[in-house]
Amino acid sequence: MSNQHSVLEATLAWERETALLESIQATLEWDERTGMPEDAGDYRADQITLLSGMIHQRRTHSEQAARIEQLSQSVSSELPDSDLAVTVRGLRRDLIRRQKLPLELVQATTKAIVLGQQAWSIARPKHDFDSFLPHLQTIVSLKREEAQLLAIDGSPYNGLLDGYEEGAREADLQEMFTKLCASLVPIVAEAAESSRRKTQNTEETVFEIEQQRLFNRTVAAAIGFNFKAGRLDETHHPFCTTLGPRDCRILTRYQSNDLMSGLFSTLHEAGHGMYEQGLPPDAFGLPLGSYASLGIHESQSRLWENAVGRSEPFWRWCLPIAKQYFPNALQSERPEDLYAQVNQVAPSLIRVEADEATYNLHIAIRFDLERSLIHGQLAPCDLPDAWSEAYQRYLGIKPVHHGEGVLQDVHWSAGLFGYFPTYTLGNLYAAQLIDTASKEIGELDTLFEQGDFQPLLQWLRQHIHHHGKRYLPGELVRRITGQPISAEPFLTYLRLKLQKVGLLT
Amino acid sequence: MSNQHSVLEATLAWERETALLESIQATLEWDERTGMPEDAGDYRADQITLLSGMIHQRRTHSEQAARIEQLSQSVSSELPDSDLAVTVRGLRRDLIRRQKLPLELVQATTKAIVLGQQAWSIARPKHDFDSFLPHLQTIVSLKREEAQLLAIDGSPYNGLLDGYEEGAREADLQEMFTKLCASLVPIVAEAAESSRRKTQNTEETVFEIEQQRLFNRTVAAAIGFNFKAGRLDETHHPFCTTLGPRDCRILTRYQSNDLMSGLFSTLHEAGHGMYEQGLPPDAFGLPLGSYASLGIHESQSRLWENAVGRSEPFWRWCLPIAKQYFPNALQSERPEDLYAQVNQVAPSLIRVEADEATYNLHIAIRFDLERSLIHGQLAPCDLPDAWSEAYQRYLGIKPVHHGEGVLQDVHWSAGLFGYFPTYTLGNLYAAQLIDTASKEIGELDTLFEQGDFQPLLQWLRQHIHHHGKRYLPGELVRRITGQPISAEPFLTYLRLKLQKVGLLT
Repeated sequence: MSNQHSVLEATLAWERETALLESIQATLEWDERTGMPEDAGDYRADQITLLSGMIHQRRTHSEQAARIEQLSQSVSSELPDSDLAVTVRGLRRDLIRRQKLPLELVQATTKAIVLGQQAWSIARPKHDFDSFLPHLQTIVSLKREEAQLLAIDGSPYNGLLDGYEEGAREADLQEMFTKLCASLVPIVAEAAESSRRKTQNTEETVFEIEQQRLFNRTVAAAIGFNFKAGRLDETHHPFCTTLGPRDCRILTRYQSNDLMSGLFSTLHEAGHGMYEQGLPPDAFGLPLGSYASLGIHESQSRLWENAVGRSEPFWRWCLPIAKQYFPNALQSERPEDLYAQVNQVAPSLIRVEADEATYNLHIAIRFDLERSLIHGQLAPCDLPDAWSEAYQRYLGIKPVHHGEGVLQDVHWSAGLFGYFPTYTLGNLYAAQLIDTASKEIGELDTLFEQGDFQPLLQWLRQHIHHHGKRYLPGELVRRITGQPISAEPFLTYLRLKLQKVGLLT
Repeated sequence: MSNQHSVLEATLAWERETALLESIQATLEWDERTGMPEDAGDYRADQITLLSGMIHQRRTHSEQAARIEQLSQSVSSELPDSDLAVTVRGLRRDLIRRQKLPLELVQATTKAIVLGQQAWSIARPKHDFDSFLPHLQTIVSLKREEAQLLAIDGSPYNGLLDGYEEGAREADLQEMFTKLCASLVPIVAEAAESSRRKTQNTEETVFEIEQQRLFNRTVAAAIGFNFKAGRLDETHHPFCTTLGPRDCRILTRYQSNDLMSGLFSTLHEAGHGMYEQGLPPDAFGLPLGSYASLGIHESQSRLWENAVGRSEPFWRWCLPIAKQYFPNALQSERPEDLYAQVNQVAPSLIRVEADEATYNLHIAIRFDLERSLIHGQLAPCDLPDAWSEAYQRYLGIKPVHHGEGVLQDVHWSAGLFGYFPTYTLGNLYAAQLIDTASKEIGELDTLFEQGDFQPLLQWLRQHIHHHGKRYLPGELVRRITGQPISAEPFLTYLRLKLQKVGLLT
């Protein structure tokens, strides 16, 4: 027992030091995406490649591997949900995945995705797919190699997917998307037609960026994002990253003619950020201090963005505050107007600005395309045509240029294949969670209208955040809601809301 | 020869990788001082401590040490200024200094100065010396230990000083400061008296911060700071840092009631930044890609700040630009008014805002006090009294609180002892350099008035920046100017300018 204790101490100390290096890498990446000078990219790639190599070597080091194996055998008598069992199981899972990947592949992939993201961020505003294509080809080729090495149940795609959503499988998701899309397509058709009839031409309104900064900061703080342990900055493609146990950075983007674009990005990223801020800081870098899965992470962001931010009581609270920042632009607005406005439905080309009804169709498209890329059924050079064809089929529209098409998302340039479906899982989890939260907490509408978001945040802290990686995502949702993962609660929530705003009969 | 070549390649590859780690550390420190969340400090200290330990281990690694020693013997027949000889000599000098310091001391010092700077940045705005004192005691104690280990010619202070200004010696500097102060005190007395008589009460003017940001960016770009390979941000205590061969970050601070405070900080830091941007990028992290000394570095910042920014032709060019950003506030100003305004002389308490005549007296005070701290003649707890006494003696004024006294500078909280005198060396070098530049380039005044700063920048690139660490600082100045380091050119420059603005007869 004393020997087990000292082995455990050595294992955790090793992991904590590795987490220091990983959080340093995250800091370099945050800086790269928030304002690093244009010419600094090559050297930054070298810095990140060095760190990622060191991290991989540490994570696959034979001494640490031996310690983890030893612990794994000695904890087999522990309860599976105990701190010790969860920690060892999480470390072992990561070790086994890592051991399948040669260092050369890890380093080549790291460098390719650093350069790929840099190339993407230059190509995107120019709508220039051709300059990005060689990077994408390299990345797809490296990720296919990785997927082969990690394949689960004969599916290389499963190997990537499982890295983001433990236990999720391609075949299950395919079935889920088929059913979900079958329900969504008629909902979208009807709601979009109603939206079109209702939408009035409104004159262009200007929301000054500096005022948006102050307004978004106020809202993020009000819902519970802790600015003593976090920041809100700006970037082209909003994201959330964590640089230490008390250092969470969220990023949004503002458009001067659209208040909602920035606000919903902020609510979304603050939802991610509050999850990170709610993880046990003492276990930072260890399984008990890490998020359960990307799907669970996305459930938090989508819950705050949609179930909260696109609700009517939220606007009863938020509009008077918004009027303090934009007295002229919002002078004659009523909460019910904005509630209706932020719930319009229209097939659109940009995923991050899609409404709740169409959003999952954007994901279904990406899920199809990235599986084809990883399975070698689609060549990167054919991606733009396949993209257009899929948008035509699912949403009835096509991009005019690559900036509103295949170049809009950072993910593939960052090597994130198998990541997109977790967005839809997040939407489904969020609907299940808010249902249960509503039953257990009581009058959420009244609380939101009063600007009191603490009861919901504390409920999420208690049922999700505090657990870290204690449970697999599917099990976590089942423990909280009593139900398996299902699209029904989401579809019910969506139909109800669209009926309420008069878009659905 | 082939063996020597492969040893050299291995040595350089090792150094380049170490430079990657050092530049990563610099990135963490930049982030820490530009907006890291308040609660993130402890973990950031852990991150930086880990890196600094790794760097120290690499810099003192026995294999690298053996390679450097081997190269050192084989290059003895090379010309001393050859690339190879300069590189090996620089690496060997650093190695020998590092080998004198035990890893525990390096790590303890790193952690103490990260926490010390965090404590300082909280204590300074509150004028709270007591909360900072324990940190200062720890840091002074660690730096005294380091100084003992590095002592040169029996002087521990020399050991620290030589790390910033190779070849500089405490005794020489003492003599230089004694002479310089003897000349400066009567100049300051007369010029301050004239300034007092001339200064009119002016009403409070507001210079909007966002406009200052745009204006300072325009000026920095105009004098030659390259924004594709650099950034300009804001912080409490302006500085310049380099995160990679094409990534130089300069920081300034703005006051809404004072346009000049921010502008001269920007000019100063841009001067540093342009030096960094002019170093050979291919030798980044190696002696040929590194600055010659802190004194030479400061000569670049002070040259752009004072010889350029506080000249009359500069204001003939700059005022029309400034009026575009501040049309109301500067409506009735003439270039000669601003030229006179930025050259007023008055004993003051804040070093970074001191005029050119009093500036070196601020340095003389810090030089005295830090030597007393390092030599153990002054206890940190007695520093505030000693500070007041010295300000009374040199400048005839005393701070009312510690924020305008002993807490104003970041240096000691960052363990930078032996650093301050390089500021005065920079002032003296700058005066010698601008004299020579003026002779060799010709009509600098005409060029400045036209906003053409390229000839001066290219002259500095050619004579200083391109050389990296090829020459010792004293030798570099002698090669360029034909003269040894001397206070006379600075005193002549100062007297002439103060006569021109009517402050000196």
